[in-house]
Amino acid sequence: MTDGLRFDLDPWSVGLHDVDLDHLGHVESVFALSNGNVGWRGNLDEGEPRGVPGSYLNGVFERHPMPYAEGGYGYPSSGQSAIDVPDGKILRLLVDDEPLDLRTGRLGSHERRLDFRSGTLRRELEWTSPAGRTVRVTSERLVSLTHRSVAALRYQVEPVDGPALVTLQSELIAGEQPPTDYPDPRVQEALSAPLRPVAQHAVDGRVTLLHRTRRSDIGVAVAMEHLITAPRTAVTESEASPDLGRTTIAVGLEPGERLLVVKIVAHEWSAELSPSALRDRAEAGLREGLRAGWEGLATLQRERLDDYWACAAVEIDGDPRLQQAVRFGLFHVFQSAARADLRPVPGKGLTGPGYDGHTFWDSEGFVLPVLTYTAPEVAANALRWRHATLGHARDRARQLHFDGAAFPWRTIDGQEASGYWPAGTIAFHINADIAAAVLRHVQATGDAEFEREVGVELVVETARLWMSIGRWDDSGRFHIDGVTGPDEYTAMVDDNVFTNLMAQQNLSAAADLIRRYPENALALKVDDAEVARWTGASAAMTVLYDERRGVHPQSAGFTDHERWDFDSTPPGRYPLQDHYPYFDLYRKQVVKQADLVLAMHFRHDAFTPEQKARNFAYYEALTVRDSSLSAASQAVIAAEVGHLELAADYLAEAALLDLDDIHRNTDDGLHIASLAGMWVALTAGFGGMRHGSDGLRFEPRLPPSLARIAFGLRIGSGTLRVEVRPDSSAYSLVGGTRCALRHFGEPVTLDPGESVTLPTPPLGDVGPAPEQPPGRSPREMLASRD
Amino acid sequence: MTDGLRFDLDPWSVGLHDVDLDHLGHVESVFALSNGNVGWRGNLDEGEPRGVPGSYLNGVFERHPMPYAEGGYGYPSSGQSAIDVPDGKILRLLVDDEPLDLRTGRLGSHERRLDFRSGTLRRELEWTSPAGRTVRVTSERLVSLTHRSVAALRYQVEPVDGPALVTLQSELIAGEQPPTDYPDPRVQEALSAPLRPVAQHAVDGRVTLLHRTRRSDIGVAVAMEHLITAPRTAVTESEASPDLGRTTIAVGLEPGERLLVVKIVAHEWSAELSPSALRDRAEAGLREGLRAGWEGLATLQRERLDDYWACAAVEIDGDPRLQQAVRFGLFHVFQSAARADLRPVPGKGLTGPGYDGHTFWDSEGFVLPVLTYTAPEVAANALRWRHATLGHARDRARQLHFDGAAFPWRTIDGQEASGYWPAGTIAFHINADIAAAVLRHVQATGDAEFEREVGVELVVETARLWMSIGRWDDSGRFHIDGVTGPDEYTAMVDDNVFTNLMAQQNLSAAADLIRRYPENALALKVDDAEVARWTGASAAMTVLYDERRGVHPQSAGFTDHERWDFDSTPPGRYPLQDHYPYFDLYRKQVVKQADLVLAMHFRHDAFTPEQKARNFAYYEALTVRDSSLSAASQAVIAAEVGHLELAADYLAEAALLDLDDIHRNTDDGLHIASLAGMWVALTAGFGGMRHGSDGLRFEPRLPPSLARIAFGLRIGSGTLRVEVRPDSSAYSLVGGTRCALRHFGEPVTLDPGESVTLPTPPLGDVGPAPEQPPGRSPREMLASRD
Repeated sequence: MTDGLRFDLDPWSVGLHDVDLDHLGHVESVFALSNGNVGWRGNLDEGEPRGVPGSYLNGVFERHPMPYAEGGYGYPSSGQSAIDVPDGKILRLLVDDEPLDLRTGRLGSHERRLDFRSGTLRRELEWTSPAGRTVRVTSERLVSLTHRSVAALRYQVEPVDGPALVTLQSELIAGEQPPTDYPDPRVQEALSAPLRPVAQHAVDGRVTLLHRTRRSDIGVAVAMEHLITAPRTAVTESEASPDLGRTTIAVGLEPGERLLVVKIVAHEWSAELSPSALRDRAEAGLREGLRAGWEGLATLQRERLDDYWACAAVEIDGDPRLQQAVRFGLFHVFQSAARADLRPVPGKGLTGPGYDGHTFWDSEGFVLPVLTYTAPEVAANALRWRHATLGHARDRARQLHFDGAAFPWRTIDGQEASGYWPAGTIAFHINADIAAAVLRHVQATGDAEFEREVGVELVVETARLWMSIGRWDDSGRFHIDGVTGPDEYTAMVDDNVFTNLMAQQNLSAAADLIRRYPENALALKVDDAEVARWTGASAAMTVLYDERRGVHPQSAGFTDHERWDFDSTPPGRYPLQDHYPYFDLYRKQVVKQADLVLAMHFRHDAFTPEQKARNFAYYEALTVRDSSLSAASQAVIAAEVGHLELAADYLAEAALLDLDDIHRNTDDGLHIASLAGMWVALTAGFGGMRHGSDGLRFEPRLPPSLARIAFGLRIGSGTLRVEVRPDSSAYSLVGGTRCALRHFGEPVTLDPGESVTLPTPPLGDVGPAPEQPPGRSPREMLASRD
Repeated sequence: MTDGLRFDLDPWSVGLHDVDLDHLGHVESVFALSNGNVGWRGNLDEGEPRGVPGSYLNGVFERHPMPYAEGGYGYPSSGQSAIDVPDGKILRLLVDDEPLDLRTGRLGSHERRLDFRSGTLRRELEWTSPAGRTVRVTSERLVSLTHRSVAALRYQVEPVDGPALVTLQSELIAGEQPPTDYPDPRVQEALSAPLRPVAQHAVDGRVTLLHRTRRSDIGVAVAMEHLITAPRTAVTESEASPDLGRTTIAVGLEPGERLLVVKIVAHEWSAELSPSALRDRAEAGLREGLRAGWEGLATLQRERLDDYWACAAVEIDGDPRLQQAVRFGLFHVFQSAARADLRPVPGKGLTGPGYDGHTFWDSEGFVLPVLTYTAPEVAANALRWRHATLGHARDRARQLHFDGAAFPWRTIDGQEASGYWPAGTIAFHINADIAAAVLRHVQATGDAEFEREVGVELVVETARLWMSIGRWDDSGRFHIDGVTGPDEYTAMVDDNVFTNLMAQQNLSAAADLIRRYPENALALKVDDAEVARWTGASAAMTVLYDERRGVHPQSAGFTDHERWDFDSTPPGRYPLQDHYPYFDLYRKQVVKQADLVLAMHFRHDAFTPEQKARNFAYYEALTVRDSSLSAASQAVIAAEVGHLELAADYLAEAALLDLDDIHRNTDDGLHIASLAGMWVALTAGFGGMRHGSDGLRFEPRLPPSLARIAFGLRIGSGTLRVEVRPDSSAYSLVGGTRCALRHFGEPVTLDPGESVTLPTPPLGDVGPAPEQPPGRSPREMLASRD
């Protein structure tokens, strides 16, 4: 069951007419705005009622003690949690001293709309105060994709049925209580008031608050100023106190007259800068925003998005809801990282407090594949952030007695913040996922400078990690023991096929890069013997296969284990981890999220078509999809092995995850990786796109429900557009240089400006679609949401 | 290195002449007195200086929250910690208003002695006060082995060189600050003042304090009264306040005159009784103690110990330190449980706060084997305690979705209190260890009533657990996946050989018991089909064998894993768990404590002599002995496979563990299981004793360092004495009924009163002794203690 909210259908926006006080948190996440640096949840202008307040700066977090019942060597002692920064989106309206509050008076109309092309959240409402005065309010806000630190609001109010004294309190509010109750009082203490006021200024209508986090010692400056248009001079007054900046604007209006206030807010943070330098930077950002004004910022916003959508806009004929959902997803994926210069992409973006604001392998595994092909400069920034955290990753490797770099399972600043190592630190595959993201990015962009400056070191240091984690057996095979793969219902296993295949690619790539960048070899102290060891280990990598069952075991012994007793598992016992102990999940055949199936996508070259079909069927019967990271991957392989309707069902599940709040936790923030997964399901699934060292290939096939899909890919300096219809696919290249690809194995070469349309070969008999565990088919998951 | 304390050598006592203020905690543990119900650490009479104060009641504990960085289903939310109860052992002496304090004045002589036959701790000292007055003090204390709740002190003081006013403050002190600093403030809060005063009484020289624990809601009553002998009437005064009961006794003495005070202290606790009922019980116990008086209590104490030693006294010719150590160990093992009626045997007994006062599989695996053969009524009580906690164990099994009973890895009250499941809850072997202790006990005692009332249900419910933990494979073999065996450097493994063999025995025994006790079958709802399933699983139990290497792998895949890099592990990195992450230990061949080697002892029938020799050599090279539970088990198998000097070295290590404080943590309490292990190493090691369903057998062989060992075993109602010399062994039966045994395979039958002496067959060539990892041989461990 979902909460029953119904967003309206539009290909370029998401709108909502209702006000449902019980599901404010869900709506706030859906309507969140961000540029990857600043994030504003979609709270109402007047701040309340609210689900979760939220104003975030990517990288601003507080440390807290990590509690353990029984500690152990290498356990992180310090946790990290993203915190609310002073909130500049609040604009409280009073009509003749009656505060606008949707819970009082009478609401004539109310509409909010997130527009994917303007990059704004608009609101229109008509409200009659308890005293009987009706006003019309229109507001629009944006978090600037061109001005890294700036967010802006345009707020207009007019009385409808008589004169009114209109007062606006425009605020910066610090220290709003976080919604979480932490069981550990130390964590509660650290996170309940993490910001210490440092200074506050109210000068000539410009209000600036300066704070510093108590433990992580990060300075935060938020500044605001207003542009006011009114039929007569409004009375304005600004004040600043440690946790509140306020500008009050009051004016009497006749019907037909309007007060228009543009609020510009600028945000800066730093762990190094002095308060005065921070203030200067924030106020400089503010000045830039003021100079552009609302129209300027809005125009730049639209231009930036036009540029993005020129490539990224996916077209889908046959399913309006999917059309809306995929653009919703692509909008948020872009927002989550667009200006995240040297910052991570958190699992929830900057849309909510979920996962403590941490970033995971989701970023390199699911989000960056989309950005690399639609906004490659943004993907590059995210990888440069990883590169900037190499020092922490090297330290962590040393602590664990390994060579190279061990990137954290979850983090904000690059240090490990996972408190449960069996599904944390030892999920070492994140290191190969990072290397794979580098390789993919270079393959798509051909960016040699990025490769040399960022890529080589990341790939080499992760390859070194694999050499020290892995081991040789007596017969000359290379093994990786005691790790956890993507599936978190299996942990601490030997030779996880996903991990081994990804490590194999990582090792080969390191050898290749060092051959191509000998000057980096010198700097990284790589010699020929080391390269030979990488090459040897890659060639000797163990890839397990269960001959008897004709499938790849997810890890050593997996297929010999007991199958989970799905028949005896009632629907109410999902997600399983909330109702069964880890050890019981770990020791049985039950899969939380695609693991071997994901390996068949990421290392498509390592499996035959027959193996893919058999493996997919085998793991479908075991996969319960208790993670939002799974459906898109299952869609990709379902499509590859010809089960197109099943793939469409998985895509639908991914598409509705946040819009319909299927997991009932969207109030904590959007599932950015799952939103990105929609694009992957479309391009790699129905587009059959694979892009590896064996080149770029497509095997496009549509499910019966779709008449056409089209998508663009940035390849080098050009854009390849792919248009898939039931019987044929068209490829056209705009700009760039000659592009080679394969269509169902047939080589195609496109010059800039050229197009080609090729027929879809008939799909052979693929047999019946595989079955999922009882109650866990995507259809049943979707059906159960109402 | 140890602390360099040197206890003197005596076969029946441990004495110490020095006062070493830096190692008070070690001495307090060595000199601790207990009866299994009440425990007093060997603090000085005057209370201070002290290492760790300590007055314990077995079962009195406080609950505290259990912190987790990331929680999970089935994690215990509440921890347990034994707490200090009001301390009745304090007697502070003032000489002319100068308090006796070893840190002031001048100490002429000081001697303390724990006497294994009198069951008392004696002290003699001569002290000159800073004012120059010299007194002679002799004190003696006991915790009564015959009066469950009673402890007593006899304190005598006389001035030596002139008249003195002698004042004794005899106290009950509650709320002494525990020495631990807990990182979690919730735990600190719960455990820093766990006792709430309920009432206090001082009536006619009888002082009683009543408290209640704040969270676990356990009532505690401690009462004291004094018997005073003085040359003239002493002035006495008694008072009681919430956390202090005090009786002050003052008298002027001339040289040659003495003040003699006998202090009787009685302790009661209950979670059910009202304060008045508790007070009544404590004061009834006090009256019994007063009636007996010091002489009566001391006489009964000696009689009880005479009875124990009649069977238990091990004699060793050739190594006086070992002779002392083994009796020291046997004394403490007996003390730890003697009157623990329906109470567990904690890992540290009642000698210190270590392990939070929890009981582990140590009890059934190491301690009860000694008690079953030397004090069977005591062993029976401990097993009755387990039986009494079946409700908790059944609840825990239900919580984990299993049948039967899942006993806790660590507990005080029978509920799981382990906060790290990979080396806690999933060490399910504890259930088979409990069943094995039951079987051993019945085998030794022939106690059919115990078997029917306690044994059947314990064995059946644990068998049921195995059936639901285990699984059948396609080829009809039974497996137990995803558990942890005794070795805590390997976790979450399949088919741990120790676990599987112990479960196999558990299942067979359940089937056998149900056949013999059909009325229990009805009560336990066991039908023929269930018995058939047990028999079938037992017969089909997987016992892995590595044909290529000719050894049993400790668990599936173990011998294929990478060997720990011992050569690159510096001595300072032991214990390994403090310097390496768990996952790295888990995935490599390195053994913390005997696991497969222990299996070869407990299930000696499941291995051929050749397998034992090869397995022992293989695992010796991997075993680092970071646990005190290991040395004795290694001694047993070293002796069996003919490496008698190595066995002697292991025995020496176990023998000196606490006396020499080899692990530097004896101040937290004695390692009761390791102390018990000495007896096991002697009887099962050099005596070659095995007692299984195949009967009682001995294959005695002495190491060159020993000229003779002798030990007694309660078998049924008689005592079998075994005397081992280099060339022969003598068996004699005292009391009881005819006893059958085998001496090196040769059947021997003894009637009561009969003796037989049989030659030791020559030991064939056993080759060189196996090697241990560098720096981890018992010789090196012993050498490093200075």
